[in-house]
Amino acid sequence: MAKLAHTFGCPSEFTLHVLGGKWKTVILCYLKQRPLRYADLRRLIPNLSDKMLTERLADLAARGLVTKKRSSSRPPRDVYQLTATGRSLGAPLTELYRWGQKHAAQFGVQVTNPFTRLEE
Amino acid sequence: MAKLAHTFGCPSEFTLHVLGGKWKTVILCYLKQRPLRYADLRRLIPNLSDKMLTERLADLAARGLVTKKRSSSRPPRDVYQLTATGRSLGAPLTELYRWGQKHAAQFGVQVTNPFTRLEE
Repeated sequence: MAKLAHTFGCPSEFTLHVLGGKWKTVILCYLKQRPLRYADLRRLIPNLSDKMLTERLADLAARGLVTKKRSSSRPPRDVYQLTATGRSLGAPLTELYRWGQKHAAQFGVQVTNPFTRLEE
Repeated sequence: MAKLAHTFGCPSEFTLHVLGGKWKTVILCYLKQRPLRYADLRRLIPNLSDKMLTERLADLAARGLVTKKRSSSRPPRDVYQLTATGRSLGAPLTELYRWGQKHAAQFGVQVTNPFTRLEE
């Protein structure tokens, strides 16, 4: 990962720096639900191109938030999952998700449950 | 505000869209503590230029998250404060702040209490 500045002016600024932007945060939210294969993530975030998703996963791995692991299923598959540090972000990720769920209607916005897309 | 898309693929994506990026989220975190004058915000976020701060405050006002109000103090002063919608973001903002506070040391990072800068 790009070397971190040694000082941040505010704890939230530091957290947002670690999260690294909207799509990386969305990816972390998904992996918080469960380990996912690359193809699952592609279907969950159709707006991201292959190149963009690959770059973001590599960056999340370099930040120590996500790791790739070979599953024990047959046939074995590579899955992405949160590291302990990634899991430590559970509380902010949960609250970001909850707020969106609760307030979308008020903004005239529809949010879909993304995981239903994996079952289609 | 730029018209919202009608559909988002994930509640967290919607929340992150409303928050609108790192610096706007940091501004909201500060205003969650208390109403602040423009000059206070400038001192709290020295990395942001006047132009950038002004733009971000205007955008937060257009999103209905922040409002400018004339204080009842003498002399009266313009202060920025959260709207009801802005206040509704309290839980995710609090968790972003807490995570940063708790985990900075583990990343070899120092975070300062920004409000002490207003007292200097």
